[in-house]
Amino acid sequence: MDKKKIIILGAGFGGIAAAKKLKGCDAEILIIDKTNHFLFQPLLYQVAGASLSARDITMPIREIFAHQDNVSVIMGEVVEIHKGQKYVALGNQDRHFYDYLIIGVGARHSYFGNDQWETHAPGLKTLTDALTIREKVLTSFEIAERCPDLAEAYKYLTFAIVGGGPTGVELAGTFAEICKKTLKKNFSRISSEKARIILIEGFNRILPPFHPALSHRAKLDLEKLGVEVLTECKVTNINEEGIQTDTGFIPCKNILWAAGNQASPLLKTLHTECDRSGRVLVDHNLNIPGHNEIFVIGDAANFQYKGAALPAVAPAAKQQGTFVGKLVYQEISKKHLSPLRKKGFSYLDKGGLATIGTWKAVGYFKNIRFKGILAWLIWGFVHIAYLIGHRNKISVMLEWCLHTWTGKRGSRVIYGSIEEKIPKPHKK
Amino acid sequence: MDKKKIIILGAGFGGIAAAKKLKGCDAEILIIDKTNHFLFQPLLYQVAGASLSARDITMPIREIFAHQDNVSVIMGEVVEIHKGQKYVALGNQDRHFYDYLIIGVGARHSYFGNDQWETHAPGLKTLTDALTIREKVLTSFEIAERCPDLAEAYKYLTFAIVGGGPTGVELAGTFAEICKKTLKKNFSRISSEKARIILIEGFNRILPPFHPALSHRAKLDLEKLGVEVLTECKVTNINEEGIQTDTGFIPCKNILWAAGNQASPLLKTLHTECDRSGRVLVDHNLNIPGHNEIFVIGDAANFQYKGAALPAVAPAAKQQGTFVGKLVYQEISKKHLSPLRKKGFSYLDKGGLATIGTWKAVGYFKNIRFKGILAWLIWGFVHIAYLIGHRNKISVMLEWCLHTWTGKRGSRVIYGSIEEKIPKPHKK
Repeated sequence: MDKKKIIILGAGFGGIAAAKKLKGCDAEILIIDKTNHFLFQPLLYQVAGASLSARDITMPIREIFAHQDNVSVIMGEVVEIHKGQKYVALGNQDRHFYDYLIIGVGARHSYFGNDQWETHAPGLKTLTDALTIREKVLTSFEIAERCPDLAEAYKYLTFAIVGGGPTGVELAGTFAEICKKTLKKNFSRISSEKARIILIEGFNRILPPFHPALSHRAKLDLEKLGVEVLTECKVTNINEEGIQTDTGFIPCKNILWAAGNQASPLLKTLHTECDRSGRVLVDHNLNIPGHNEIFVIGDAANFQYKGAALPAVAPAAKQQGTFVGKLVYQEISKKHLSPLRKKGFSYLDKGGLATIGTWKAVGYFKNIRFKGILAWLIWGFVHIAYLIGHRNKISVMLEWCLHTWTGKRGSRVIYGSIEEKIPKPHKK
Repeated sequence: MDKKKIIILGAGFGGIAAAKKLKGCDAEILIIDKTNHFLFQPLLYQVAGASLSARDITMPIREIFAHQDNVSVIMGEVVEIHKGQKYVALGNQDRHFYDYLIIGVGARHSYFGNDQWETHAPGLKTLTDALTIREKVLTSFEIAERCPDLAEAYKYLTFAIVGGGPTGVELAGTFAEICKKTLKKNFSRISSEKARIILIEGFNRILPPFHPALSHRAKLDLEKLGVEVLTECKVTNINEEGIQTDTGFIPCKNILWAAGNQASPLLKTLHTECDRSGRVLVDHNLNIPGHNEIFVIGDAANFQYKGAALPAVAPAAKQQGTFVGKLVYQEISKKHLSPLRKKGFSYLDKGGLATIGTWKAVGYFKNIRFKGILAWLIWGFVHIAYLIGHRNKISVMLEWCLHTWTGKRGSRVIYGSIEEKIPKPHKK
């Protein structure tokens, strides 16, 4: 008899966890991902912030499964899921049939209908996003140094980050440290210390999912680093010259977007109910209605937990992947429905952590709240522990030590040229 | 009185050495470079070969001179040197005047009049070149794995390297190890071990500047790694489908160019005598005729030594930079011509080294020749010793240990997507 075919779309936290759980299963597993690597997204902002390099937080998918014989990997983009005939189609129309389909395709950032803002305010989801931001920020300093007049120069030294969730807070803290520490003494005409970093949040406090006391602490910590924190501030427009909010216009050449997610458009081809952010509504087994062979996990799914959708965090995706992997393994080996289906997926809330800068972080686990050095150390240990690969762990620790002691950042390479971006000199 | 102005074009081995020698000099030094980083070019092929990441072999120019107060840095491209009025002009027409000009702008690869070959056969001089090659090679394996027929797939798994100098040899060895070791067990349809690596050299042996015994040893070592070495083989055409030589056509999707240099076109604006490769003919002080305030160093210069132009190697550039830095320092502080001008620049030949693979290298120093493990260890120590920055030294050693023991390579990230590059499936 032919082996059962399992297709996993997306090699993020969820997809990788599912595939690993299926080790030893007598099935053919096919992982399809747009990229060739697993990305450790929680540290992606540090690539954008020139602390870490791409390889520190990635691992080739093929390398992860080099010794798991039931896994093959395809690098490619699935453009359609055909749940009736049970296949997925790649961009070149290649079809791959499945008995089980596990979908963990994640999300992109959403501009709430203002997609034209993306050019001026890139978001941070993929490695390419992170390198785009790094390049933009580092180049801004180079342009500023060459700007004919200083008023113009300081537009390039103003950084606005839209969205006060963990990513926004981490980016704001990082850029503050870059300006005040890393680039100190690096320029002759401009002073990087005089750069402005502005964090903009629509809600009445930053880090909305955290306890108000931690939000408050994070705000104080950011302000100590020189970040201006604007809450209850709505962005109404973004263009090349800056950012318009309901309280005024900020001239600014560096805008980063850390507000709002939209699940992958591929999910629409499932023709099943989605929420406002495009996430698929799944049942207690992470299945879509009427298809107990299709699972949606991670940021692509809306799984109801305590009356709301599960947050888009790595532990949730990982736990879901593990659950689905185990369930499918049982069904294939025992040849009947897994007993796990009765119980359904249950989420173990591991709390939250957000880092603001060196020695500065906030976090919670159940009712316990951490802040300051303790939170920062916990944050560091947790992230090192969950990184994939010994090489990456060692390399990240090395970078962090260097960075903590000297303020230096290892990955300050600019790839592009800047000549065409320099404003023309004024008539003399 | 105004301080003397020294402009250094290019922050390579020569430019950096000159600027460092000028530390403490009562002058204004301006370094202008197209990129924001110093690049340790001898290890660039390891970035192309996915062993090292960009940051391991780079250092921001600003960081190198953060504590040398007489240096400013501009990232930009000089498009003209006006030796009459003593200024250089940037792309945006900004002019910078000098009392001394030190030119170390290096070279690009040359296709001997066949510039259309560049699209299919990229060369290796800059970081962007290295990443282009890495991306092309890694993507080839992904495409091959998805190719509808295997004959087509193996075109993507054929690598031809044109030019049997140190760079060509190092690239051939690297790609052989990638195919035979790094990617082993990574693919399901293709066998990376079956990839062909072909090194093509026009002369009758590889490594022409080395002793014939070492050329012979290098050839044997390469062949042990599975590389096909073709000598006395002339390339007559290159296109999308492969490479035409005087002995036949090789179907091949990966061609790399490691033959021939052409100095920067900026040098033409000096309106002084250049050689066939565009290098400026300099006198014993590295000056151009009639301008003892203009120095040309490194790969941009043709300095006659033992009846030939000095080879385009890092030690030559570095020694020249040091000589010029010292000379200019003396003239500015003593306010009369430096006594160094009488003696002129003298080159200390430090021999040569080329690595072929793990534990395999060849090298010489004066009349002593090294090969095998000893040469490989010397090669490793020398390169670590000359890398700039402790972080880079540690990181490179870490990568090499990992790589030597496990065959793994840390930097296998593909940034682009591949969907549009996949050949369409055949009719079934």
